[in-house]
Amino acid sequence: MFKAAIVGASGYTGAELLRILWGHPGIEVAVATAKQYAGEPIGSLYPSLAMQYSGKFQEYSPEILDGCDIVFCGLPHGQSMGVVSEAAAAGMKVVDLSADFRLTADEYQQWYGLEHASPQMLKSVPYGIPEINRDLIAAAQVVANPGCFPTASLLGLAPLAKAGVIGSRVIIDSKTGVSGAGRKLTLGTHYPQVADNILPYGVAGHRHLPEIWGELEKLTGEEMEVVFTPHLAPMNRGILSTMYVSVPESATPAAVRSLYDEAFLAEPFVHVLAEGKYPETKAVQGTNNCHLAIETARGGMTLVVMAAIDNLVKGASGQAIQNANLMLGLEETSGLEGPGLFP
Amino acid sequence: MFKAAIVGASGYTGAELLRILWGHPGIEVAVATAKQYAGEPIGSLYPSLAMQYSGKFQEYSPEILDGCDIVFCGLPHGQSMGVVSEAAAAGMKVVDLSADFRLTADEYQQWYGLEHASPQMLKSVPYGIPEINRDLIAAAQVVANPGCFPTASLLGLAPLAKAGVIGSRVIIDSKTGVSGAGRKLTLGTHYPQVADNILPYGVAGHRHLPEIWGELEKLTGEEMEVVFTPHLAPMNRGILSTMYVSVPESATPAAVRSLYDEAFLAEPFVHVLAEGKYPETKAVQGTNNCHLAIETARGGMTLVVMAAIDNLVKGASGQAIQNANLMLGLEETSGLEGPGLFP
Amino acid sequence: MFKAAIVGASGYTGAELLRILWGHPGIEVAVATAKQYAGEPIGSLYPSLAMQYSGKFQEYSPEILDGCDIVFCGLPHGQSMGVVSEAAAAGMKVVDLSADFRLTADEYQQWYGLEHASPQMLKSVPYGIPEINRDLIAAAQVVANPGCFPTASLLGLAPLAKAGVIGSRVIIDSKTGVSGAGRKLTLGTHYPQVADNILPYGVAGHRHLPEIWGELEKLTGEEMEVVFTPHLAPMNRGILSTMYVSVPESATPAAVRSLYDEAFLAEPFVHVLAEGKYPETKAVQGTNNCHLAIETARGGMTLVVMAAIDNLVKGASGQAIQNANLMLGLEETSGLEGPGLFP
Amino acid sequence: MFKAAIVGASGYTGAELLRILWGHPGIEVAVATAKQYAGEPIGSLYPSLAMQYSGKFQEYSPEILDGCDIVFCGLPHGQSMGVVSEAAAAGMKVVDLSADFRLTADEYQQWYGLEHASPQMLKSVPYGIPEINRDLIAAAQVVANPGCFPTASLLGLAPLAKAGVIGSRVIIDSKTGVSGAGRKLTLGTHYPQVADNILPYGVAGHRHLPEIWGELEKLTGEEMEVVFTPHLAPMNRGILSTMYVSVPESATPAAVRSLYDEAFLAEPFVHVLAEGKYPETKAVQGTNNCHLAIETARGGMTLVVMAAIDNLVKGASGQAIQNANLMLGLEETSGLEGPGLFP
Repeated sequence: MFKAAIVGASGYTGAELLRILWGHPGIEVAVATAKQYAGEPIGSLYPSLAMQYSGKFQEYSPEILDGCDIVFCGLPHGQSMGVVSEAAAAGMKVVDLSADFRLTADEYQQWYGLEHASPQMLKSVPYGIPEINRDLIAAAQVVANPGCFPTASLLGLAPLAKAGVIGSRVIIDSKTGVSGAGRKLTLGTHYPQVADNILPYGVAGHRHLPEIWGELEKLTGEEMEVVFTPHLAPMNRGILSTMYVSVPESATPAAVRSLYDEAFLAEPFVHVLAEGKYPETKAVQGTNNCHLAIETARGGMTLVVMAAIDNLVKGASGQAIQNANLMLGLEETSGLEGPGLFP
Repeated sequence: MFKAAIVGASGYTGAELLRILWGHPGIEVAVATAKQYAGEPIGSLYPSLAMQYSGKFQEYSPEILDGCDIVFCGLPHGQSMGVVSEAAAAGMKVVDLSADFRLTADEYQQWYGLEHASPQMLKSVPYGIPEINRDLIAAAQVVANPGCFPTASLLGLAPLAKAGVIGSRVIIDSKTGVSGAGRKLTLGTHYPQVADNILPYGVAGHRHLPEIWGELEKLTGEEMEVVFTPHLAPMNRGILSTMYVSVPESATPAAVRSLYDEAFLAEPFVHVLAEGKYPETKAVQGTNNCHLAIETARGGMTLVVMAAIDNLVKGASGQAIQNANLMLGLEETSGLEGPGLFP
Repeated sequence: MFKAAIVGASGYTGAELLRILWGHPGIEVAVATAKQYAGEPIGSLYPSLAMQYSGKFQEYSPEILDGCDIVFCGLPHGQSMGVVSEAAAAGMKVVDLSADFRLTADEYQQWYGLEHASPQMLKSVPYGIPEINRDLIAAAQVVANPGCFPTASLLGLAPLAKAGVIGSRVIIDSKTGVSGAGRKLTLGTHYPQVADNILPYGVAGHRHLPEIWGELEKLTGEEMEVVFTPHLAPMNRGILSTMYVSVPESATPAAVRSLYDEAFLAEPFVHVLAEGKYPETKAVQGTNNCHLAIETARGGMTLVVMAAIDNLVKGASGQAIQNANLMLGLEETSGLEGPGLFP
Repeated sequence: MFKAAIVGASGYTGAELLRILWGHPGIEVAVATAKQYAGEPIGSLYPSLAMQYSGKFQEYSPEILDGCDIVFCGLPHGQSMGVVSEAAAAGMKVVDLSADFRLTADEYQQWYGLEHASPQMLKSVPYGIPEINRDLIAAAQVVANPGCFPTASLLGLAPLAKAGVIGSRVIIDSKTGVSGAGRKLTLGTHYPQVADNILPYGVAGHRHLPEIWGELEKLTGEEMEVVFTPHLAPMNRGILSTMYVSVPESATPAAVRSLYDEAFLAEPFVHVLAEGKYPETKAVQGTNNCHLAIETARGGMTLVVMAAIDNLVKGASGQAIQNANLMLGLEETSGLEGPGLFP
């Protein structure tokens, strides 16, 4: 049994790590830290976990990680990189759920306004989508767990990008549940402001844009123009990304379908829906799955790619555990196989 | 006081006509028909109207319209055209909320699978968006009230289309509340299936597509490729359309902003939001308003246009009353001026 | 046209006063103050009001009220009593939406932990439920606008209490929408915590309890035991109170029904539903109405009384305007007559 | 590995049995029947199960159960008793999720309007709440799985009833998510009718009333008056029951607390919350848990008992599996141990 530490465990992604790891056959939680809630029972903050976890949140210190094999770091960006470096230096595997290791140092400075403390580390840290970077992840000491929007978008576009049948302008219209904004109190996540309502945000440039863009350019080897509009939808969980791309005439519907089938047939967590069926967020609720569909728009020049994930699972904590499974040599699907909760 | 009949009044658009007309200074409801509910008190079906309407739904017959000045026809497509023709022949003004007079006879046959019974009438029936066809509407005997998606989309795109600064490919990603699907029971509108969930539908071709497309081509005078993806969002009311268009380099952000300001400054129901603000459906809940925003995506080649309306008001019954006001020579804003219900 | 000031206008009750007064034929808003948002356009905080109100929130000072006829005071308890006293001393009518004038000085100290600054004023301030205290309100200079829970509960119980056919133990199980908690950010009103969820709170003693209890004892003239359990339901607006009382054998279903019909037949805002129909919060959404139903539970010893209101309208701002109408000698229903927004 | 059949598997409780049994270490699903969907892939009806179940729904016939050890019967009442009798006669263990074996033959006729086909069987069929009838269930061939409301209510009241410290009048105010009404299309479960809304139903007598009442009288040995008001809340899952009982003076808060602690300390699925904490439905979402709290109302004469369960799990399919575990000699908690999905 590998021992895991969750640093920054009081947020929704922390709670989700606790939820999923509870039933994991190869990893057990040894430590969960949360500065603001140190000393408070886990079950007091999350009654949904009260009957499984009798322990308390602890205060972080480097020593507290002693004996752990894997660290899940759920601290805010900027605060994460120090902890990640320390744990890696101490020989532990680390999955970083923050944005600290997802971009180049330059882009990081540009989008997050901070100088990166370990720019030399960045090159050895793979971007943690196993369906794209499985081997790099398995060999890595530190993995950068992707953002929720990039995960849905890149899974949906990877087959086209790898095959080189994607126009240079990609439009991504994403809808996310409110848990994506975390547990921090803001007017924009106050119930009466968002219930029974839908709205776009970050239209002029959301921080997940450079992730999508950067990884897409790695796949195509060409410069890409990515237009990305996130929307806040009145639901707890889930991301639906609807993506619009131009494809060459050679990319007939049948040819495109084949690309997706080939790309994902052996993937345990990606499911290409039958023709005429479209993904819905609630069908992947609580799972590490991604449901995908492709449809050629009338006129034939535009392909519509639709991808649904649970933002807290495949978009965060589930994918982190999938990465950890690979890094620790466990079965990739360990702890992540179950069906979704519906309705 | 003009007398109005609502034919097919038991659906949500019928109830909304009853709600808005209750406070209308120039039009009063004389008749409300509903086949299935004939003889039943209006307030029994809609307790929200019980204290304002003590009458009952009636069975439709041509005679029941005697003495009415204006007919709002809320019957399903196919059933509407006969009633509309009869009422028009009897000299009444008619606003048809169905799809029966929105398309050419050919397109109607293609998209609705029915031969049009009055193809010769179609040419004299304007498409009822006052912000686009005000004078035609004011002079018409019959007006085709637009679909909810086309209203939001065309209001958002009209300034670009009229100015000729819109690329030939337009992508419209729309999100609608569940009331848009009406009061008919379907698995897709059963609470546990749609609550806390979001999903696309009609991706391969929704019936509102030819409306958008047709009207857009009238405005640009050129062939357009419209990609339209509606999504069902877990909310009662509201449509948000996020639209992606290419604009020429001459269309700088400032130039585009001017186009919108000029187009809508004098419009009582269209509000272009301040820069950096985006529309949300709940801000127009219960109103005939359309909130608009424009943003240039990073890279500068794509313009994002966002439009929010209440699907049952500006997207249906409110716009029908706005049209009726024009047709009857009343103040265009009569009965429609109030603020929205928030939260 | 009477001139109104809204002091403390940035909360949901303030916004609701602005919404309703916009269409009021006898009162217009002259001033709206909001300390935190002074100088900010009303429409920037509430886009739903942007097209009706072009003005800005102002900073409160006693002078700003000059020329106003009526003051709606929406400040938090403790802060309100000073402003109310000043405005009353300056000769203005005042409706106080806080709890400052609802209780005796002793009870106020016990439940709110503050000494009352104007205990002598309390006796001349009627409790503002017009259906119970109409004449006192019409003659008053200051009215204490009731809490949302007490309004629903007292309207439902008043006919029994007045008739003396109510047991001494009353159980009130209430469900409220989240807007009842106001615009203040708390974990308990953070969307992911309350959506798709229901929970009781304040079970050991909610601050609305002494209001219900006190007014009920005034009506019965006897000591009452009131058990009151509020619940937070995942909805924006609305209160549903389900109340359980013992009635004497003489209070047959028919007799009870008569009591309610007599009590409310002439009331413009209270609607006793037909037998077998029960109230729902959405049927009164956006209105000043109260929908009531009564049912005798199996066994015949317990009467179930159900009352639904919109917590922000009849439960706050609508009732405040109803009180103001009475105080200013206007038609009691002015500005408050419209149907509800459904769905 | 025991083999299970699910008869009537296309409803929400059927889907929930499939979801939970997928991860069950001792039971596997061999057959799932659904008349209306026979021949259709399970994953087509429930995309949330698509990646776990590749099979199809089948048409029921007695032969199809051959080789099964346990039958979960999810047919509607009236249709269930025949299948249950056949399967039991063939030697299989049966958990019946319908109401067919929950009442006496007389009560069944009175509340369901049907003559019971196997009245002699009724005496040997225990009411399936393991926390109350564990030994009977373990020894039974057929178990009547309780209704969702009775489960929450009886778990909450059992300690008082067994100890004989409960007044003869019990008031139960319950709130349920919409999935409790099943997958059948009705106006009352149409999204726009129930979203953002709350309402009581069945006030004059809900079919779960005689279950609660009957079991409660078995526990107290005395005649009880139960007042039961269910409410439909805008959420997918969950039941919260708020219960009001009189207790004798000897039942001090500390004494009552002890009763609950003793009753449930060893129970794996019932959690008595810390003092001052109250249950919420989302904390038990997706689990077989029941969260309980007790509070003495001001005045000291009324005890408020609050119980939250997931209506589809502890209120239906989870409890069915808990019963099956006992009947098959498996660990009672098998397949049911995990934490809840929050948010």
